[in-house]
Amino acid sequence: MAVKGLGQLDQTYDGSKLKIGIIHARWNRVIIDALVKGAIKRMMSLGVREENIIVETVPGSFELPWGSKRFHDKYQDLDVIIPIGVLIKGSTMHFEYISDSTTQALMKLQETIQIPVVFGLLTCLTEEQAIARAGLDEGKAMHNHGEDWGAAAVEMASKFGPNAF
Amino acid sequence: MAVKGLGQLDQTYDGSKLKIGIIHARWNRVIIDALVKGAIKRMMSLGVREENIIVETVPGSFELPWGSKRFHDKYQDLDVIIPIGVLIKGSTMHFEYISDSTTQALMKLQETIQIPVVFGLLTCLTEEQAIARAGLDEGKAMHNHGEDWGAAAVEMASKFGPNAF
Amino acid sequence: MAVKGLGQLDQTYDGSKLKIGIIHARWNRVIIDALVKGAIKRMMSLGVREENIIVETVPGSFELPWGSKRFHDKYQDLDVIIPIGVLIKGSTMHFEYISDSTTQALMKLQETIQIPVVFGLLTCLTEEQAIARAGLDEGKAMHNHGEDWGAAAVEMASKFGPNAF
Amino acid sequence: MAVKGLGQLDQTYDGSKLKIGIIHARWNRVIIDALVKGAIKRMMSLGVREENIIVETVPGSFELPWGSKRFHDKYQDLDVIIPIGVLIKGSTMHFEYISDSTTQALMKLQETIQIPVVFGLLTCLTEEQAIARAGLDEGKAMHNHGEDWGAAAVEMASKFGPNAF
Amino acid sequence: MAVKGLGQLDQTYDGSKLKIGIIHARWNRVIIDALVKGAIKRMMSLGVREENIIVETVPGSFELPWGSKRFHDKYQDLDVIIPIGVLIKGSTMHFEYISDSTTQALMKLQETIQIPVVFGLLTCLTEEQAIARAGLDEGKAMHNHGEDWGAAAVEMASKFGPNAF
Repeated sequence: MAVKGLGQLDQTYDGSKLKIGIIHARWNRVIIDALVKGAIKRMMSLGVREENIIVETVPGSFELPWGSKRFHDKYQDLDVIIPIGVLIKGSTMHFEYISDSTTQALMKLQETIQIPVVFGLLTCLTEEQAIARAGLDEGKAMHNHGEDWGAAAVEMASKFGPNAF
Repeated sequence: MAVKGLGQLDQTYDGSKLKIGIIHARWNRVIIDALVKGAIKRMMSLGVREENIIVETVPGSFELPWGSKRFHDKYQDLDVIIPIGVLIKGSTMHFEYISDSTTQALMKLQETIQIPVVFGLLTCLTEEQAIARAGLDEGKAMHNHGEDWGAAAVEMASKFGPNAF
Repeated sequence: MAVKGLGQLDQTYDGSKLKIGIIHARWNRVIIDALVKGAIKRMMSLGVREENIIVETVPGSFELPWGSKRFHDKYQDLDVIIPIGVLIKGSTMHFEYISDSTTQALMKLQETIQIPVVFGLLTCLTEEQAIARAGLDEGKAMHNHGEDWGAAAVEMASKFGPNAF
Repeated sequence: MAVKGLGQLDQTYDGSKLKIGIIHARWNRVIIDALVKGAIKRMMSLGVREENIIVETVPGSFELPWGSKRFHDKYQDLDVIIPIGVLIKGSTMHFEYISDSTTQALMKLQETIQIPVVFGLLTCLTEEQAIARAGLDEGKAMHNHGEDWGAAAVEMASKFGPNAF
Repeated sequence: MAVKGLGQLDQTYDGSKLKIGIIHARWNRVIIDALVKGAIKRMMSLGVREENIIVETVPGSFELPWGSKRFHDKYQDLDVIIPIGVLIKGSTMHFEYISDSTTQALMKLQETIQIPVVFGLLTCLTEEQAIARAGLDEGKAMHNHGEDWGAAAVEMASKFGPNAF
């Protein structure tokens, strides 16, 4: 029985009224750029207008929660935020503590800013894993995960965003 | 001494007045559908009316806490929510960080929305484990855990829900 | 040098004025019943009146924090709560996520309800460990940990309960 | 290059105006008593008056955060609290869940009571490790860590306590 | 494909109006001093004035969150704080519990004091790892991470600080 796999969108979404923020770290930049591009492409295919997608950056993943918070303060009318970062296991425990604290903070951030936050963090044990999840490996073993995040953003904003009901 | 095993319901419950929300992720859909079905079947056997069970979806498990929060905002009169998701260990650390942050957030959500939240997350190391816990393995080694969640929802709403006393 | 071992009570306590709630899960019921009995016996030996010990149940350990919260809402004059559950490691990661989120939530609950909460959770790797800690193994290698929890409840309510000073 | 090692005090402190609370668990009592004694001795060497050091106890480490909170409620004018406990790894997962939840709660407690809390918890894998850190091993391989906690308490109260500026 | 590596600054920053706090632990002092120096040097190269960089210390890393909080209370007009500490794995579990609770608390601190907090904690398994990340190893295998923190502080204050917009 084949059970694993990405869920499909449950309905047709019209993203033309949505305003969406992407905030990304700049470590592992090649991978991040591909992920950001994948998210934007997917959102536009769901009707989101290019001028309604605002992109901002922070140095590293630890900066994503506070950056997202202030990004929201600044624009005020964002329907959803996609923080994007790529963490790769190194020889110290830096990876574990940053991954854990950032994930927990992005989850809680939703209560603080009262809009959905899509989890755009790759927490990989090797560079190869990150490359594959950005759709950048030669064999194209996996799809660009940024596309999933773009779709999730449109769905969450439409269903559970500040203007959803 | 045989000690392990599911506790039985401690009394007879009448679910006919309860309004219950199920919100589920769409990853690993075959398993999730079986779990949702199991929960609904069990709740109806305890008197919950089909029209009082509202089902909504989100893309993945990370979306369950915020989705549950807004699901509650939308209907306002839910007595209990069952968020359902199936997480299966992959090669990166995604499983660990999503499982941890989602579990912590679902626990805390109860304080925010002031209604009980039943923990409908399977955190499995293999697909086989998830299949078995949805009652889908050929040998029927385990029962459908969705049934437990349905029973827990009726009990928690009746004892500790917003209208319980 | 023998250093490990249970601390003794630091003074004589009179539990005759205390009202104490026990809320327990029903998984692994044989063990839990012994632990509950141990806690009650010890509290009564410290002067707590049987009619001032209220016992309630929830399905599983994840339900303990919210159950305890509402249990407190219901009776309002409890001096301390003892949530009791027995978690045993299985093949998935369920044990870890439930143990972690429940422990964290029981700790925080004290701030929410402003009364002491005694940690009555066994987080065991095997059934044998749980059996021994309930004082149920044939060799009586260990004492019934419920007794410790009963003593801790009387002490914490007397020293740091809502009516302690 | 020798890099590890305890930092020295950065200036001379006068503890003569400070009021300091020590609250300790009673498990592993021999070790705890030595640690408490070490903390008191060091604080007095920094000018803290014996009558301004208040000592209270709780049964185990899980009780330290709530105990500290109420200890602060009771005396109201404490400048800093040193919760002291000794956790030693056993065969179940009790050590991990208690260590984690207690550490997190002691950290957060500072926000709740708005005074510094010194981390006086030993989280050891063996009894030998705990004995050494209390300065009780025959070879005196390590110093009594209670002394560090006493020094940290005087410094934190002086620099960042409620009456520091 | 070379993917790993520090992101570069995304634009030119003028730090001449910023007021920045550095608060550091004193354990592993040699390493910490190099990190602090690296951070200051980098900030000054971005225009921050020496008199606008305030340096304070605490005994150990656990003291960093509360120290940072009160440091902010004291000066009130800081645009960003860089807490710096070096944790090195020892034989007990002290490293893990301190690293985890400190990281979580520094992340949350941003919500409390409403200014960005740069993560200046090294969580190393060996002294050699810490020495290399302070730019102190003979082979100069790595750069001084304090420089990254200095750059991150200027960027975060400029983009997302209390006076950024």
